[in-house]
Amino acid sequence: MAIQLYDLAGKDSDIMFSPFCWRVRMSLLHKGLNFELIPWRFAEKETIEESGHSAVPVIKDGDKWVGDSWEIIKYLDTQYPELPTLMNGSEGRAHAQLVLELCGSLVFPAVIPIAVYQAYEILDEASKPYFRESREAMFGTSLEQLNADPQAGKAGLVQALKPFDALLQTSNFIGGDQPTYADYALFGILKWADIVSSYRPIDDTSFVGRWFVRLENMYDGYAKNVPTVRNR
Amino acid sequence: MAIQLYDLAGKDSDIMFSPFCWRVRMSLLHKGLNFELIPWRFAEKETIEESGHSAVPVIKDGDKWVGDSWEIIKYLDTQYPELPTLMNGSEGRAHAQLVLELCGSLVFPAVIPIAVYQAYEILDEASKPYFRESREAMFGTSLEQLNADPQAGKAGLVQALKPFDALLQTSNFIGGDQPTYADYALFGILKWADIVSSYRPIDDTSFVGRWFVRLENMYDGYAKNVPTVRNR
Repeated sequence: MAIQLYDLAGKDSDIMFSPFCWRVRMSLLHKGLNFELIPWRFAEKETIEESGHSAVPVIKDGDKWVGDSWEIIKYLDTQYPELPTLMNGSEGRAHAQLVLELCGSLVFPAVIPIAVYQAYEILDEASKPYFRESREAMFGTSLEQLNADPQAGKAGLVQALKPFDALLQTSNFIGGDQPTYADYALFGILKWADIVSSYRPIDDTSFVGRWFVRLENMYDGYAKNVPTVRNR
Repeated sequence: MAIQLYDLAGKDSDIMFSPFCWRVRMSLLHKGLNFELIPWRFAEKETIEESGHSAVPVIKDGDKWVGDSWEIIKYLDTQYPELPTLMNGSEGRAHAQLVLELCGSLVFPAVIPIAVYQAYEILDEASKPYFRESREAMFGTSLEQLNADPQAGKAGLVQALKPFDALLQTSNFIGGDQPTYADYALFGILKWADIVSSYRPIDDTSFVGRWFVRLENMYDGYAKNVPTVRNR
């Protein structure tokens, strides 16, 4: 039976942009596990209540619920050790954790001006008040103010990605010759920006950009072929 | 025969602080290789001329010269594959490269105000003009100006170490359960600051600080027992 992944959807179910859900999607593809996406919206707390979580990603694997992207990744490696590993031993985990830290301290803040207001715009009406209130409290400013200077936003992202751009100059993937969860951790944030932004937010000719395209093309072009606000 | 490591010395041969040489020293200890330190000073270009390099670290292993810390690390893993690995495969290398990038963009700039003027002060007189001229050109300011605000320097280092502090909250080493070259890459920079500074530059109670002490205590307390400007 396919694993069910509850994944954040906008007002149209085909636009699914959550960075944390993207981390899980790419990880499920990496392991070659069958999965089914179940569109979920912020106002639908009750459909995942049984999991003990109030936000996605949440997976249901047979009878087992697992929530929180980090817990899901660890679960997948533990439950399916015979399938390709997402984090190889304690070093793989430490490597992914360092990338997650950099995502949190460098990349996520740089994506906020590019992708938070844009995400709000494509939400269903019922979820908008929750999203506006929670995000404006989180970032200490209005959604409109976050979106005030798109040029600065794009430049800020280039700056934040510099350590990764330098690494990817000589390495195909953050994880080395093959992608690991360290790659999907960063990819998830950038795919969020890519899906909701009115322009392609990363430069496809940079080293990060070429790595991004390599990952988009993997798994039969899964991430390349999803709808975005620009191409649907 | 022991590997000879040409290592930067101050006016007194017992104070050896080069961050790049520390990376190599810890790596030689990690692999359990015998080595002999040969004190070298900036004004002594001719003693390592045969290596093709004009600065240390340079090693001589039998008849073979290898210079540049990154090349030396790769050489050690290639030449001694049966000894403990510094970088395990392409993932280990990518992990170390990411840490090196962060050292270059975050940590090194934060250590400059703590350790460059201090290093100058303990150099031999013959090396001082070269050091002053090359470093003032590199940093675009006088050595004295770099040293103007030690309090700000220490606070800047805490900030720069944040991604590592977060990682080391849940991981014993940057490399996971055991140290790898990813650990020594950062350790080398911090040991430089520790040796030349008039105060202990990192907080021993932080997660980075506890990790630093763990590494100092390894290999029979090798790094703990070296002289510093504070304790000799």
